[in-house]
Amino acid sequence: MVNRVYNFSAGPSALPVEVMQSAADKMLDYEGAGMSVMEMSHRSKPFEKIITDAEANLRALLEIPEDYDVLFVQGGATLVFAMVPLNLMTGSGKADFLITGQWAEKAYQEAAKFGDARAVASSKEEKFSFIPKVPAGEFRKDADYAHITWNNTIYGTKFPEVPDTGGLTLVTDMSSSILSERVDVRKFGCIYAGAQKNIGPAGLSLIIIKKELVGRAKEGIPTYLDFKTHADSGSLFNTPPAWCIYIAGEVFKLLAGRGGIPAMEEINKRKAAKLYDYIDGSTLYTAPAVKEDRSLMNVVFVTGDEGLDKKFVSEAKGEGLVQLNGHRSIGGMRASIYNAMPEEGVDRLIDFMKRFEGANK
Amino acid sequence: MVNRVYNFSAGPSALPVEVMQSAADKMLDYEGAGMSVMEMSHRSKPFEKIITDAEANLRALLEIPEDYDVLFVQGGATLVFAMVPLNLMTGSGKADFLITGQWAEKAYQEAAKFGDARAVASSKEEKFSFIPKVPAGEFRKDADYAHITWNNTIYGTKFPEVPDTGGLTLVTDMSSSILSERVDVRKFGCIYAGAQKNIGPAGLSLIIIKKELVGRAKEGIPTYLDFKTHADSGSLFNTPPAWCIYIAGEVFKLLAGRGGIPAMEEINKRKAAKLYDYIDGSTLYTAPAVKEDRSLMNVVFVTGDEGLDKKFVSEAKGEGLVQLNGHRSIGGMRASIYNAMPEEGVDRLIDFMKRFEGANK
Repeated sequence: MVNRVYNFSAGPSALPVEVMQSAADKMLDYEGAGMSVMEMSHRSKPFEKIITDAEANLRALLEIPEDYDVLFVQGGATLVFAMVPLNLMTGSGKADFLITGQWAEKAYQEAAKFGDARAVASSKEEKFSFIPKVPAGEFRKDADYAHITWNNTIYGTKFPEVPDTGGLTLVTDMSSSILSERVDVRKFGCIYAGAQKNIGPAGLSLIIIKKELVGRAKEGIPTYLDFKTHADSGSLFNTPPAWCIYIAGEVFKLLAGRGGIPAMEEINKRKAAKLYDYIDGSTLYTAPAVKEDRSLMNVVFVTGDEGLDKKFVSEAKGEGLVQLNGHRSIGGMRASIYNAMPEEGVDRLIDFMKRFEGANK
Repeated sequence: MVNRVYNFSAGPSALPVEVMQSAADKMLDYEGAGMSVMEMSHRSKPFEKIITDAEANLRALLEIPEDYDVLFVQGGATLVFAMVPLNLMTGSGKADFLITGQWAEKAYQEAAKFGDARAVASSKEEKFSFIPKVPAGEFRKDADYAHITWNNTIYGTKFPEVPDTGGLTLVTDMSSSILSERVDVRKFGCIYAGAQKNIGPAGLSLIIIKKELVGRAKEGIPTYLDFKTHADSGSLFNTPPAWCIYIAGEVFKLLAGRGGIPAMEEINKRKAAKLYDYIDGSTLYTAPAVKEDRSLMNVVFVTGDEGLDKKFVSEAKGEGLVQLNGHRSIGGMRASIYNAMPEEGVDRLIDFMKRFEGANK
């Protein structure tokens, strides 16, 4: 008997049940191939179709223009933190960063190993509770790119709009928001994302990059870290993380069938609004993120009492609402409500929050 | 109705049916967690147990000494080709390579980007049909390490014994032979392997490394490429390829239950001997690899007639014996008979070969 919980983990996180059920059904024999996707040569026809379809479906979902490459790589956003400067910080050797959370800071620190990385602004002093508004003039005109982290999982903030960098190439980590809301890909030179929130299983990263930015890598870097390696080979330079690409492809198909990104955005806005509205009206809970910068994906809240926060997380778990603890660096609570979290899960959470509030006034 | 084929792919390749069936059964609810392994936070208790058990079971199988670290990383052997020199070619900056196939050559070429890599010997002129025997005196005494590729998938050769490098640290790529035969880990400073042959799904690499060799990386390399990053964090510096680690762990458990590596070695030797004996006695097929260096995992053979080779591969496929084509760089046939290929599959292949020989004399 399958007994599912509502999984509010920030990542790896919930996946669509339909996708997993289908993967289970086809585990020993994928569509007549007589073998599992895990057993397939990455140069075989069935896998070629899997990776080609995955890319095509992603391109359709995000309306990725023809002059952008889509790369499937390994190593998580952490490895991309190094790949980006090694590939792009190669003109003036300068890049400007907006520090809006721990992950943004990590991207910045990694880039600083390879060139002149500069923090243009940071909300660290204010516990990353907002997204700094930076005038275009603050960016260095000769920088190779500007880097932002679109959604900040730990603090529950996101960019309300694409910042004006005065024409600099904009690179963004969208690990925790990709596929959740409309994005105008043209406004970015490079969008990258670890898969384990809205895409598929951990072990895969997506890089969407303007073709003209491919082929600018520093000399002598590891072959695997050169964007060109993956662009020239259709992400098949070496054996790719085939299972992850397969599941990601199934997620893309499912989203397309449900109305694509506009439909997801509508549902996600409704889910987040319900939760924030309840929190804002409550006398027990507060959401530290400033309203205009609130994340649609990670709703961070506290009671203001550490002991009570712990009790909340523990009692919620008892009701099948799990992984509601905040990031280990800040505590409190965090409800990650990615695409795969059904609206019913949010309703159940609010119902629990109300009862907990009543019992702990 | 599940209709399985015998999959002779060189990698990704066959996995144990029991492991996949169990993974399918637990897809939506892993042992009462109420979620799939794909959905689990890598910092959650159930996943902590998965990765801890996987490491412990691997250590037991290979009798890995306490003074070795076991790292689970991403990027395939291709990324490890860069990690090894970036971490270990840091004393004299020299390393010596035995070139026994395309993968050995790739490891050598990648290392040459980062220091003084030297090819000590190569069998390339003889189409990699044997493993060069190199006297210990040929290695540079001051090299940081010597590198070998234990098993050469494309040419069907393997080292018959650990070469004497005159005391140099020995590093080996064991991607296509790990877990198939007994290995004395103490003879190596570092053993690494992509998972997609004998371990689990593509997207995971194993690095087994003497602790004293960790912490010697070049300054300023990408954080992900430093062995210390993964050693210090128990392979949880960033989100690991959780599904791959889970399946690998299940494979380790299965092998332990079947008598461990000695039992696997016995079966693998029997499988390979059957096939080579038949080929050697046949008038149609020949195996190009010299007898004393023959691989237990990849049995390479040809008819000597390209058209006939193609016919062989095509007719075999019609009987459910698939992926028997040789590597695209050399053609001919290759039967990869990793741990998960049952003896019955080899028997079926020999039966087909006999009939094909009879029909094509």
